[in-house]
This record gives sequence, structure tokens and C-alpha cells, in this order.
Amino acid sequence: MQKRTLRAPFFVVNPKAYLYGEKALALAKVADQLAADFDVDILFTVQQVDAARIKNETAHLFITVQHLDGIQIGRGMGYILPEAVAEAGVTATFLNHAEHPMTVSELTTAVQRADELGILTIVCADSLTEAKAVASLNPDVMVCEPTELIGTGQTSDISYMEETNQAIRMINPTIKILQAAGISTVADVEKALLSGADGTGGTSGIVCADDPAAILTDMIHKVAEIKKEA
Amino acid sequence: MQKRTLRAPFFVVNPKAYLYGEKALALAKVADQLAADFDVDILFTVQQVDAARIKNETAHLFITVQHLDGIQIGRGMGYILPEAVAEAGVTATFLNHAEHPMTVSELTTAVQRADELGILTIVCADSLTEAKAVASLNPDVMVCEPTELIGTGQTSDISYMEETNQAIRMINPTIKILQAAGISTVADVEKALLSGADGTGGTSGIVCADDPAAILTDMIHKVAEIKKEA
Amino acid sequence: MQKRTLRAPFFVVNPKAYLYGEKALALAKVADQLAADFDVDILFTVQQVDAARIKNETAHLFITVQHLDGIQIGRGMGYILPEAVAEAGVTATFLNHAEHPMTVSELTTAVQRADELGILTIVCADSLTEAKAVASLNPDVMVCEPTELIGTGQTSDISYMEETNQAIRMINPTIKILQAAGISTVADVEKALLSGADGTGGTSGIVCADDPAAILTDMIHKVAEIKKEA
Amino acid sequence: MQKRTLRAPFFVVNPKAYLYGEKALALAKVADQLAADFDVDILFTVQQVDAARIKNETAHLFITVQHLDGIQIGRGMGYILPEAVAEAGVTATFLNHAEHPMTVSELTTAVQRADELGILTIVCADSLTEAKAVASLNPDVMVCEPTELIGTGQTSDISYMEETNQAIRMINPTIKILQAAGISTVADVEKALLSGADGTGGTSGIVCADDPAAILTDMIHKVAEIKKEA
Repeated sequence: MQKRTLRAPFFVVNPKAYLYGEKALALAKVADQLAADFDVDILFTVQQVDAARIKNETAHLFITVQHLDGIQIGRGMGYILPEAVAEAGVTATFLNHAEHPMTVSELTTAVQRADELGILTIVCADSLTEAKAVASLNPDVMVCEPTELIGTGQTSDISYMEETNQAIRMINPTIKILQAAGISTVADVEKALLSGADGTGGTSGIVCADDPAAILTDMIHKVAEIKKEA
Repeated sequence: MQKRTLRAPFFVVNPKAYLYGEKALALAKVADQLAADFDVDILFTVQQVDAARIKNETAHLFITVQHLDGIQIGRGMGYILPEAVAEAGVTATFLNHAEHPMTVSELTTAVQRADELGILTIVCADSLTEAKAVASLNPDVMVCEPTELIGTGQTSDISYMEETNQAIRMINPTIKILQAAGISTVADVEKALLSGADGTGGTSGIVCADDPAAILTDMIHKVAEIKKEA
Repeated sequence: MQKRTLRAPFFVVNPKAYLYGEKALALAKVADQLAADFDVDILFTVQQVDAARIKNETAHLFITVQHLDGIQIGRGMGYILPEAVAEAGVTATFLNHAEHPMTVSELTTAVQRADELGILTIVCADSLTEAKAVASLNPDVMVCEPTELIGTGQTSDISYMEETNQAIRMINPTIKILQAAGISTVADVEKALLSGADGTGGTSGIVCADDPAAILTDMIHKVAEIKKEA
Repeated sequence: MQKRTLRAPFFVVNPKAYLYGEKALALAKVADQLAADFDVDILFTVQQVDAARIKNETAHLFITVQHLDGIQIGRGMGYILPEAVAEAGVTATFLNHAEHPMTVSELTTAVQRADELGILTIVCADSLTEAKAVASLNPDVMVCEPTELIGTGQTSDISYMEETNQAIRMINPTIKILQAAGISTVADVEKALLSGADGTGGTSGIVCADDPAAILTDMIHKVAEIKKEA
């Protein structure tokens, strides 16, 4: 199965477990409109149970699950079957997030299964050494967040960003790079993309803002501006 | 939130990761019709991404997830938020299946969160000693399957079933008991319910049968017959 | 195999991974002398590789491992075999510490295997509900530490201690109770034992003190004093 | 700290949890004598509690633990501290065995910590893709066992062995390669080493043999013969 093409610079709205149901759908619709208006690729992560509905009520988003398991059709009580996720319209998956670590074997299998089913893989690493190991699995996107910054509202420093960007590109220059640690302002978005990353995005900086739709709009505006300049 | 009342004898259709999407929906519709025709409570387990759709296209089933996580709204990348599952129309959840073991702490929290949200809990134990520990968490339903029988088409012997039934009822007589190891024939259904269990059900005995709808119909017919006699 | 009798009030020196090798042995010798001088039962936890040596060079301590696995002789690469631990002279084991959570099934099996081999079990729970589930496994000692206090130097409040003491004794009055969250002063030792706990102990309060031997001596002196009054 | 040099062809005696205490020591002494007599490097894996004693009573073996954790001195209740293992005289460690899988992050950290402390790392992968990811962590030795063969007495086929040997050497030609799946005869030892592997070894083929010392002697004799020819 063919994967959907992901164009840089892209943006990830990652509500984790902050939003679900109606509220997640409402923000997804805002993101969907922004994706259309600004011609920017936006990945929107969902609770598993919300995937199909958000897919059905939007047109442009990359519907993204926050995890899936590399199991095969059959047993596997309680695990997320890649085929089920694909049939529900999911386009991408995060894997190995610091909050949801996977064994080497689980991650290897999950990347392979997602590849078979045309699901884009966004794989996380929380150090430069780990990033090199993960890069050799050839994920579509890699995330390099120093674990200690997640949820803090502090971004990685520019030299860390550049160093991880370079290290990953030396292994495989086709892997896209997401720098998204602690992004909470438009300036953070700019800084991440100017580091050379292919994408950026946010969680608490957006969903915990007074007006999530407003901050998201400003951020996508900035992404579109950088896209035009590129 | 109020939990839906579960009436014994009940039946669990548990497709695990054998079915998903269209095929899962098709079997769910058969089960839904049987629940209506025979006035039997049927729990139907789903892949997370299929929950909302199966809920929307059926009327009688207890839509059941195969796992959820005891997390709170907030962080928790890739985990199954109980609130999301509840809003999607899920009525029950399995927890601590032998194929998806949970830590004592995770299980304790997941049962509490499900209780808060009105989600029935079906908790698995794979030995009598473990069953006693789990019973003290006061789940709504307990499953006592000797791990080594899962997926074999062999049922627990009647003395094991009676012994676990008794042990659990001594701790808490209000917990309902599911005996569902290796159920693949109508005779197995009868044997499980006559052991004194409140419910039974199946996976491969149904989904891997030549005609899943036919075997399921026969099984529910037997459950209804036993219900009438009770 | 017969378990060694543990007499209340007892004390646990738990260096976790702060001490090892020579330094662990040095503190163990201090504890051993105190156990003899004050006739107080002292459990001393060790890194696995240090167990045999500390056993051989002391006479009175309950040599305690910080974890073991409920495996059988055979495969199980990298796991801690209960028989190996027992033959090395280990008398007790912690299980299910908040820093090393176990699945319900792993914990159940580990307690059973330790029982078979005469190893005292000290099982942790991090909430009252979890404590009830764990108590039904009939460990020799239970630890009830609200997870959020570990390593903070803050003790549980007296009402939490009394509540957990009571809840556990209602299930099984023969289980001994260890209250050891955040113990760092002699006053903390006194407070924990006066709550009705059978034992107390410490980690960072001792090993990170300027003079670990001195603070340990003062604490054991207090335990002995309370023992005499009892 | 300097790692001990490991010379090919080497041999690994891996009793897993089959042997411990006196019996493990007895086989270790046989292996130690063979290492001396045939000038072959032999790694002998131990239960953690047996490490120090077997180190003290042998002279030539690479004392090898079956796992360690990449933790730092401090908290980490129940985990295996690399410093403790090093001080006890351990020279090498297995990591990420199929029976003891590690997360990407845990494995990365454990390799780094072992490197800091001069402990040789023997890292397992159970597929070719996983092997490539693991190779980028630069372990000293890699093991490539198709998981399904472990403990079966069946060896990997020669083409699988040659393929993994090649793939690993393309990434990093300095990594030594252990081919040890299902080795139970002298012919298996020969086949593995002639595949181009740097080392081989066994578990059940040795410890479950009628006369473990005899079969081990024959195997080491073969290794020595191949070494001379090289």
C-alpha cells in the first residue's frame, strides 16, 4: 500500500490524552481548515476510539495514532492491530514515544507492519545515540526530544537540534525530522524550523492555551510563511 | 456514572485481533440480532478504532474494549484514555488478560477509573491465587482461565471451574464469573454455564469456524435455553 | 524450607543502588554489630552480586534482595532465580517496589516461589486499594508507601499509616507492616513505629547522611528503646 | 576503564537459570581448566548472586552476567547496577536477549554504562532488521538468533548465519559475531564457526547433556582446532 506523501515543513498537533471526543473533533476541524487555507500538511494525533470519526469529518489532515502494535491478525488481546487502524483511515503513527517506550523487537516489528500497510511512521528517540539506532530502521519521520524537556514548555537548544538533524541525515537523508520539544509559541515554531527540521508541532502549548484555535492558527501561519520562503 | 446492568447468563464474543473493520461489524450485527431475539446479554469486544462505529450500528450489544489504561486526562502518549472510550459508547472493558498483563498498580488504577466512568470491568486471572488477589479489587466480572488453555480449543475441567467459582464467591459473591477457556462447541457452552459460571464466550471457536454466524447462533440459542430453565 | 522468624519492631536498611561492593559491606558490618548489640532484627538490602559476600561477612542480618523473579529452574535468561538467591544465603526479598513494578501474575508467582524456598516476602503497594489486593497474597511483610513520597524525606502522615495498618490487619492480621516512606530522622522512626507498624527503615536518610553509621546507630537505638517498652 | 580483549574464536557457556550455586561453580571450574589448557577465551554466564564466587574461584573465564540495567548510582530498587557488577569482577554482559527484551532507550543506556565501566557487551537481536539497529549501538559482540530456534536444539541455517554476519560487518566490521542458536553437538560448533562467526556457545545442549563436562570438553577441543587452523 502506498503511503501518503508528507511535505515539509509540516506541523503536528498532538493532543495526547488532553483532548478526546467532541473537543478533539472541534480542534481537528480547526486544523483541517488551516491545512486547506495554508496548504500545509498537518498531522493530528487522536485517541484510538476517535480516529474513524475525525477521519470522516475532516478532509486534509494526516490522521495519526499515538501508538500501534506490530502484531499480526490473530491473537493479541488488547493490542492495536495495524490493519484495523489502516482500515479506519489512519495515515500515520507515532512509535516509541518517551511516555510509551517499546522494546527493540516491538519497535522493529511495528515499523515493518506499518510499512506493509502504508502507514507513515514517526519514531521517537530520546538521545543522539538512540536516534542513530532508530534511524537504521528507516522510519518516515524521526523525533529527537531530550526526554527531560517533554511537557516543560522549554525547547531543545538550537545546537542540540542541529546536531540531531545532522546525525540522522548522515545515516539516511530521506528521513524527515520533527523537532517538537516544548513548542509553545510562534517563536518556538520558527526556531525549530530554522534549525533545519522538516516539521514541528505541539501539545500542551496548544491544548492548554486559553484559545487553542488561535495559537494553532498563528503557528500554522508561521509554518506557511517559512514554507513560502523556502 | 451508572454502569449498565449485566444479566446472567451472558455471553462474550471476543474476536481479539482476528476481526476488525467491516468483518467485525458484520459479526457484531449478527450478535446484535441474536441479543434481541433471545433476550441474552452479549458483550462484543472490538479493536479500539472500531468501537464507535459498531456502537452506532448496533442496539443491544455491550460494546467492550479489550484493554484500557488507568490514566487521567493529560499526558500519556499512546495510552487508552478511559474518558475517550466512555464517550465513544463503550460499556465494558477487559483488563489484565494473559496476553496483556498489567502491573498490580496499573490494574488497580484502571479498575478505579473504569468504575468512575461507569465502564464494567472484566478482569482476568490465570491461577486461583491470582484470582483471589484480583477479586479484592471488586471487578464486575472475573475470568479464570488457566493460561495454558487459551486458544487451544480445550476447556478448563469442571472441577477447576467449580473451584474458582467458589473461591471468588467467598471473597465477593457479587462478582460475576466468566468461564471461557477454549469454548468451541455448544457442549462447551453448556458445560461452562452448568459449572455455575455467570457467563461464557469464545474467540477462535467462533471466528475461525467455517460459519461464525451459525456457530454463534447455536451458542446463543443454548445460553437462552439455560436462561429459561434457571 | 523454614523461613527465619522476623521479630517486631524490625528495621530495614535499604541502600537501593546507592551503595555496593566495599561500601555496602562496610555499612552492613555496622548494621550487623547494631543487630547484635541491641537485639533488633535488621534487614539489609543488597545488590544481587553483593549478597553472598555480605552474608559471609556478617552474622545477624537478614540479607535481603531488592527483587527476584518467580521463575523455575530452566530457561529465563537474565532473571533472578529464587533457588540461586536462597543458596547464596538470602533470607528475604522485596517485591513490587514502586520503582520495580510487577504484573499481577509475576507477583503472584514470585511470592509462591519465595514461600517454597523459605524466603521472607516484603511486598509493596502504593495505595490502600492496591494494599488490599496484595494482602490477599499473604506476604510476610507489606509496605504501604504513597509513591509520591519515595525519596523526598517526607513521611506519610500518621492517619495514612494508621489507615493502611488497619486495612491490612483486617484482611490478614499475621502480615507484618513496614512504614518506611521518607524516614530520615530518629523522630521519623519513632513516629512510624508508634503508628502501630511492625517495622520501619530508610534509604537516602541513611546512605546520603554525612555519617551513615552514626544516623543508623541512633535509629536502631530508638527501635531498641521502643522494643523494650512494648 | 579498559575492557578485556576477547579473542576469536571464543565460546560461551550460558547456563541461564538451569544451574546455580555449587553446580554452576563445578561447571565453571571445568570451563576454566579448558580455557587454560586450550588457550580459548570462554565466557561463562552466571546468576547474579554467583558472580563474585565464580570469579574468585576461577582464573581464566570471562565472568558474564545475563543482564544488567543502565541505571546510575542512586535510586533504582531491584535493578542491577553496572558499578556493582564491575566491582564484583564481571567482565561481560548479555543484553536484550529474546527472553529478556529491553526498550530501545534501556538498551542504549545499558550499552553506554557498560562501556564506561569496561564491561564487554553482548547484544542480541532476533531478526536481521533488528540486528542492523542494534549494530549501530556498537556493542562488542552481537548475537543473531532467530527467536523461534532458542532452546530447540535446531541451529540457524548456514545461509541465515552468513547473511547476518555480512549485514553486521557492513555496519561495523569490528563487532564480533556470536552464532549460538540451538548448538548441541560438536558438529554444530564447527558449522557455526565455519559460517564466519567469531564465537559460538550453548545452553541446554551442554547443561542438559548426560555429562555436561564431557560435551563441553569436546566442544572446546573443536574450537581450539579451528583456532589453530585459522
